[in-house]
Amino acid sequence: VPGFKLTLEYDGTDFAGWQAQREGQRTVQTTLEEALARVSGGPVRVVGAGRTDAGVHAEGQVAGVRLDTGLEPETLARALNARLPSDLAVVRAEPAPDGFHARRDARGKLYRYVIWNGPQRSPLRERRCHRVPGPLDPAAMAEAAVAFEGTRDFKSLQAAGSSVTGTVRTLWRVEVTGKAEGEIRLDVEGSGFLRHMVRNLAGTLLEVGRGRRPPDAVAALLEARDRRQAGPTAPARGLTLVRVDY
Amino acid sequence: VPGFKLTLEYDGTDFAGWQAQREGQRTVQTTLEEALARVSGGPVRVVGAGRTDAGVHAEGQVAGVRLDTGLEPETLARALNARLPSDLAVVRAEPAPDGFHARRDARGKLYRYVIWNGPQRSPLRERRCHRVPGPLDPAAMAEAAVAFEGTRDFKSLQAAGSSVTGTVRTLWRVEVTGKAEGEIRLDVEGSGFLRHMVRNLAGTLLEVGRGRRPPDAVAALLEARDRRQAGPTAPARGLTLVRVDY
Repeated sequence: VPGFKLTLEYDGTDFAGWQAQREGQRTVQTTLEEALARVSGGPVRVVGAGRTDAGVHAEGQVAGVRLDTGLEPETLARALNARLPSDLAVVRAEPAPDGFHARRDARGKLYRYVIWNGPQRSPLRERRCHRVPGPLDPAAMAEAAVAFEGTRDFKSLQAAGSSVTGTVRTLWRVEVTGKAEGEIRLDVEGSGFLRHMVRNLAGTLLEVGRGRRPPDAVAALLEARDRRQAGPTAPARGLTLVRVDY
Repeated sequence: VPGFKLTLEYDGTDFAGWQAQREGQRTVQTTLEEALARVSGGPVRVVGAGRTDAGVHAEGQVAGVRLDTGLEPETLARALNARLPSDLAVVRAEPAPDGFHARRDARGKLYRYVIWNGPQRSPLRERRCHRVPGPLDPAAMAEAAVAFEGTRDFKSLQAAGSSVTGTVRTLWRVEVTGKAEGEIRLDVEGSGFLRHMVRNLAGTLLEVGRGRRPPDAVAALLEARDRRQAGPTAPARGLTLVRVDY
């Protein structure tokens, strides 16, 4: 049975995330599996590179699937896109190497978190940006961001109640760009991520941006290995899974 | 009664345009007037700089209103945004000069039309871009675009059935940027516009991009003063009113 690597783009606004937390929710995974089942004529199971939360978007999520079909990848992509809803599409389909596993084989991921630091709401940014109305200091945020780079124990940024015990991860790049009273972007690139890690990192940097926490507080925050030492979880709408590297 | 100049941003997807064509439609104008009526306690009439079509977006539409209120412009903007739906916001409010008329006083406007020339659908561009799947030649489009610049009779680009008889307008800048298999942007800046003019210009340039019409055919097309000589009206979703100048 040939394997395919599918690169997905979605607007996460109306999805309950990649994977259902409760029965009957509209998820990216089941929406994709239903389209695959209609194309192949039988039940299909996909593996996603990352389980994005409800409301999180993707420009380059990756799903692996084994499919009993004679279709060329390009033809499969077109057939799927004709059946998928307007907020989900296969932007690229490729043959997958033998034994390909979208999650385990991923070497790294790039996430982007976008903040709209405007005095008023921005309807055209409503779906993809988290709006912060008050003053922010992007230079302080950029300084604090760099302190998250490296191989570190990120337990302080792990979702409360998560059962994962190995919490050491490597971030290659944590970069803040943009300007006050405009769009501020946070790029986080690394080899692995804990649940809510990027959103908790964004929430912590927002506290730095508001002057509630100095940029040099990051080291102590990580050393504490305590979720309560970090900032709140920033809203899902600002987050996009940009790319998965293999 | 003090006058205000309101700069508006909206996602046009779920609006039936600036102004109703039929009773009971959800329009930008009536949505804004309802919010103004709730803030001021009485009926309010606004004047828009341009009557954007159903599905057309705005980053900087301008509306003028006279309002019996003691509110400062900034406070008025916040009060309105608390009442307006998520797809419409006042991004700036200023005192208007005496006798200000948003449409008649406008000296120029910038419209942007965005094309997604991708092999597959792009869900994150779904609301704001017109997708063209086949090959396009942006260089040919850019060459043809320049030929629309200047003071010319644009009757060939006027909506069929329009009753406007003076069809001479001035375009200062008609510019195509971007690349094939990516986003292609068309900026059109001028002192005045006929109904559907930018969408018909975009539809004509798309025919040039597809190789169905040579770039140097623009002059003859305009000289014909015949709507049937131009390309089809490009879909509303790709169009944004970026700015109105006074």
